[in-house]
Amino acid sequence: MSGLQLLLVAGTHGNEVNAPWLLDQWLKQSTLINTYGMRVLPVIGNPAARTMAQRYLDRDLNRSFRPDLLQSKGSSDQEVDRAKQLLSLYGPEGSSPCQIAIDLHSTTAAMGSSLVVYGRRPADLALAGLIQARLGLPIYLHEGDQAQQGFLVERWPCGLVIEIGPVPQGLLQARIVEQTRLAVEACFEALAAVSSGLVAYPDCLVIHRHLGSLDLPRQSDGQQAGVVHAQLQGRDWQALQVGTPLFTLADGEVLRFEGESSTVPVFINEAAYAEKHIAMSLTKREVWPLEPKWSGALQALVEG
Amino acid sequence: MSGLQLLLVAGTHGNEVNAPWLLDQWLKQSTLINTYGMRVLPVIGNPAARTMAQRYLDRDLNRSFRPDLLQSKGSSDQEVDRAKQLLSLYGPEGSSPCQIAIDLHSTTAAMGSSLVVYGRRPADLALAGLIQARLGLPIYLHEGDQAQQGFLVERWPCGLVIEIGPVPQGLLQARIVEQTRLAVEACFEALAAVSSGLVAYPDCLVIHRHLGSLDLPRQSDGQQAGVVHAQLQGRDWQALQVGTPLFTLADGEVLRFEGESSTVPVFINEAAYAEKHIAMSLTKREVWPLEPKWSGALQALVEG
Repeated sequence: MSGLQLLLVAGTHGNEVNAPWLLDQWLKQSTLINTYGMRVLPVIGNPAARTMAQRYLDRDLNRSFRPDLLQSKGSSDQEVDRAKQLLSLYGPEGSSPCQIAIDLHSTTAAMGSSLVVYGRRPADLALAGLIQARLGLPIYLHEGDQAQQGFLVERWPCGLVIEIGPVPQGLLQARIVEQTRLAVEACFEALAAVSSGLVAYPDCLVIHRHLGSLDLPRQSDGQQAGVVHAQLQGRDWQALQVGTPLFTLADGEVLRFEGESSTVPVFINEAAYAEKHIAMSLTKREVWPLEPKWSGALQALVEG
Repeated sequence: MSGLQLLLVAGTHGNEVNAPWLLDQWLKQSTLINTYGMRVLPVIGNPAARTMAQRYLDRDLNRSFRPDLLQSKGSSDQEVDRAKQLLSLYGPEGSSPCQIAIDLHSTTAAMGSSLVVYGRRPADLALAGLIQARLGLPIYLHEGDQAQQGFLVERWPCGLVIEIGPVPQGLLQARIVEQTRLAVEACFEALAAVSSGLVAYPDCLVIHRHLGSLDLPRQSDGQQAGVVHAQLQGRDWQALQVGTPLFTLADGEVLRFEGESSTVPVFINEAAYAEKHIAMSLTKREVWPLEPKWSGALQALVEG
């Protein structure tokens, strides 16, 4: 067994309560999650925000892992301090170093169980491909978005987000807890297979590549002027066509999609994204052959 | 036309955002809601909590209309002050008196569109019966619960709650807005019919009479020890039978219903009720003949 240690983070957003609940129950019942022999370090990302049942206190912790913020001295934001602390404890150079970070999230959007990777890091893509081959989860590749930076997993050599919904903020739902458990176990199983050397990679992976985001319709003063169209609500991962209804305005006017057909929306009407001016993100579904350098990078990381 | 004026309250809970959105849009677009000629006074119940996107600031406004609280001098709770203010403005003896109050709510439970009446006030039952006859909405009769007192509509001669879900707190969903609009219009249409004297009452109404509430399973220290069973989630209004799964504990143990068969659960896993120690409420479905004194009471109120 190598010195590989996995960081398993829940509650990076304090009002996403299902994954923290799962970790709490795991502490009471050690057989609840099969780690497949992997060494796993579970941690609550933002315990102060969890206590307050808020997404964050000063700023979004999962946008606080930006190099400029991490290098700042004497920040007044609690989340930047917490980001620094998590890295000093569990970062690749931390006191209890972890090489891979799995960050567990939930969403009010109907994302089902899904994976999010940030950029095209080879080990991330290899791991996402292995989990997709086991459970069929869709992969959202977030990249090239200047407005959204500083995600937690980016500061570990390998890492991804497991994103599950729909579920209201602050509400435990048994199905969401169970979906989280299954996705986490699939991740551990995949890494154990890599560790054992007996891993079978899929030939390719299906990714949904981030193209950009749409804001809600707004008045000239910035006030929200419409809502996500009822027919689009809950249709995450389902391709838009020219003319698909997107938004409804107060007077009943419907704004329709005019972009490239087969664009795939994700995070439709996620409650926490209104403040980020994101009503949904748009992606392009692509099939990528799994490259040997990806699996090689993951293998090298696991072997330490 | 009588001097009848209706109070239409949205945002009594600051994180229930769909009805306030509807009222905002109505201000911009006067044809959005057909009032059927009724005089309607729309108001945001708890604007301070709405600004904070919280259910309440100091205490639940919709439990703050208790006579003892309303008679108290110099309360330090903002919601008690707001309750007094709403009554002094729009109460039956207020400066702009309203005789009927309709209070618009949303819930994370799968209640669909539904009506809640408090106690067995004749005019309330007549109005609920008329709306049920139009839209078929289920009626939850809340009564005899010492732990839950002080609802807003109880302080008006006639009033009911329109409760719609499931929808996360803080999230606008077009379908919830539209369901709210339809229920409000049905209410106005019913009252206009009463006012015109050309009203046809149903022979009976179907009510779900409150029996009591179940808390989540808890440890001896009060900590939550389980979650609502996945099979029960979303099954509001569907009768329980002996053996129906209710809760799942950390070790997988399932707690099952052992009460009287045909008990009907409502408000299953409503996010805001965890702090009230309510995992769901239990009701008995009954068919009540519509009594002449009920319609008489509503008629008298409308005629002023």
